[in-house]
Amino acid sequence: MQQGMAWPDERFLALFGVELPIAQAPMAGASDVELAIAVAEAGGLGSVPCGMLVPEQVEESVRIFRARVQRPIHLNFFCHEMPRDDPEREAAWRESLRPHYEELDLDPTATIATPLRVPFDSAMCDVVEATRPEVVSFHFGLPSATLLERVKATGAKVLSSATTLEEGEWLEARGVDAIIAQGAEAGGHSGTFLAEIGAQTNTFALVPLLSDALRVPVIAAGGIADGRGIAAAFALGACGVQIGTAYLLSKESKIGTVHRAALAAARGNPTRETNALTGRLARGILNRHMRETGFVTPLAPTYPLAANALAPLRKAAEQRGLGDFSPNWAGQAVALAREAPAAELTRRWAAEALSIVGRST
Amino acid sequence: MQQGMAWPDERFLALFGVELPIAQAPMAGASDVELAIAVAEAGGLGSVPCGMLVPEQVEESVRIFRARVQRPIHLNFFCHEMPRDDPEREAAWRESLRPHYEELDLDPTATIATPLRVPFDSAMCDVVEATRPEVVSFHFGLPSATLLERVKATGAKVLSSATTLEEGEWLEARGVDAIIAQGAEAGGHSGTFLAEIGAQTNTFALVPLLSDALRVPVIAAGGIADGRGIAAAFALGACGVQIGTAYLLSKESKIGTVHRAALAAARGNPTRETNALTGRLARGILNRHMRETGFVTPLAPTYPLAANALAPLRKAAEQRGLGDFSPNWAGQAVALAREAPAAELTRRWAAEALSIVGRST
Repeated sequence: MQQGMAWPDERFLALFGVELPIAQAPMAGASDVELAIAVAEAGGLGSVPCGMLVPEQVEESVRIFRARVQRPIHLNFFCHEMPRDDPEREAAWRESLRPHYEELDLDPTATIATPLRVPFDSAMCDVVEATRPEVVSFHFGLPSATLLERVKATGAKVLSSATTLEEGEWLEARGVDAIIAQGAEAGGHSGTFLAEIGAQTNTFALVPLLSDALRVPVIAAGGIADGRGIAAAFALGACGVQIGTAYLLSKESKIGTVHRAALAAARGNPTRETNALTGRLARGILNRHMRETGFVTPLAPTYPLAANALAPLRKAAEQRGLGDFSPNWAGQAVALAREAPAAELTRRWAAEALSIVGRST
Repeated sequence: MQQGMAWPDERFLALFGVELPIAQAPMAGASDVELAIAVAEAGGLGSVPCGMLVPEQVEESVRIFRARVQRPIHLNFFCHEMPRDDPEREAAWRESLRPHYEELDLDPTATIATPLRVPFDSAMCDVVEATRPEVVSFHFGLPSATLLERVKATGAKVLSSATTLEEGEWLEARGVDAIIAQGAEAGGHSGTFLAEIGAQTNTFALVPLLSDALRVPVIAAGGIADGRGIAAAFALGACGVQIGTAYLLSKESKIGTVHRAALAAARGNPTRETNALTGRLARGILNRHMRETGFVTPLAPTYPLAANALAPLRKAAEQRGLGDFSPNWAGQAVALAREAPAAELTRRWAAEALSIVGRST
């Protein structure tokens, strides 16, 4: 950090007890505790995505983190409602995918065991109580009042994402400590939980709208991929940022070859929002499945079940080096992502941002 | 302007010969020369939307401007291709609207003479040659090479809007002097001319993508409604901004009662993108027609013809105080718009922005 330069707003630093106002976005399936450790070592808020982990894996992640770095840890959980199986809908979805199964010489009834995205529950709450992470965030709203109370009773700071003003007000009324203003630019799943498709607001408008209306601090997310974006977020009224896609080319990222190649090849904005990959609105690099099935399709089974029938197709296509059925999650600023160690990226972005909006001390 | 404070990038000021890096967006049907004069008097770039004017009205606008203020003037033109009449499509569109005609006790074949949105042509180019505006901008790409050459030969600085990197590169290759990076947040018609629906990039990502890839200066538009937005645009790499919606509650704005009431009532982001009002993608405040017809509908006749069959419905509904069929154009940051004279808004925003990203001189 530059000598003698301070952030124009230090609420993020005070709330989380970190040195830099940068949270690494928890990216289920794409990052684990290694990325969290690297970001934490650089002074940012390191985050572990727990939505596809079982309780023992979460405990193990916290144990590894605590052994390697003396910094706050941020655990992230999903809190969607798990849908019942709907055999009729599943059959229609599989039927629509049948030509692809045939093209790839796959049995149309094939299945692959894939880690399921599961909502936060009492067993996971036991882990939070046992491991005492400094920060806990939720995606898709908040868990039940009972579970939320248990998390808050541990002393963890609680975050969730808002994609509209209404969602921000809903979260504030339920006692979150800060709100992530997730613009529609963001990669991966939109955190939206009250709004209809199309109502999601972009970062540029969402951050000042939430900052003006809410008392809790606002953290900007979506489209932020370097120091310029961090500086812009501060100008708009945020006290910090959450960055995801721009970490995906770091060596600590866990993405596969196909995903990495798609990110590295990005020019301009090759992303689209779609529900055709998981059943829920998410932003990823445009691929054949999204285009042929339709970006937003009523055929897709409810989240997260739509991913099941795609799993065999994805695996077979990826073996041929193709991302035709892969969820290559990425935000609109993906072309700004650079290959470098995550700690170096974190420090570089902070220095760039300070040179734009830093205040002399 | 604050004493001793300078903008971090002065290319906008140098290119246009103005004092503040703020262009007022030309808003056809919503603003005229009065708004341009007010903004110019405050030191910004005043703009006259000419896409719904006949040549004599453009001449008269320039004459009025020159008589009142000694500043550069910016004229804006459309350059879509005018579609042929398509009676079959028009009939199907009218048929889909028939229940609304009946509900409002209107003859389903009724028409209203409305000012048509017409593309820039040789007659309009004669006016540019005669009146010599300092700045000329185009929406929906650029006119023919012949017309463009004639405009450039007058010495006017030429601008157009890009909504993707590809569009920015296309415009730069054709010799524009600066590019408006129009994020998907922007109100009114998207300037998009090469990209498919869904590819439009948001301001937060578009500005750095274009700034990195282009040599010409980038002006940010979309979601900017106060000094915070201007400061953020500079942080992202823009040398200035274009602001539209945030001027619509000024006394110089020409919008009707229904539009003004919808803007004043905005909380959060009540806007959606739709082609159901004119046949081309545009952002406005959500209304009944958009929801019932579908936000993006294949039924709508080609731009600008879809508006014709809506005109009688709009008029009848507005007489009842309803915006059910009105194009109440607005960007995502509409809730930040404030009632005040346009000159005062311009100066206030500049002062706010300088206090965030200004450099001591």
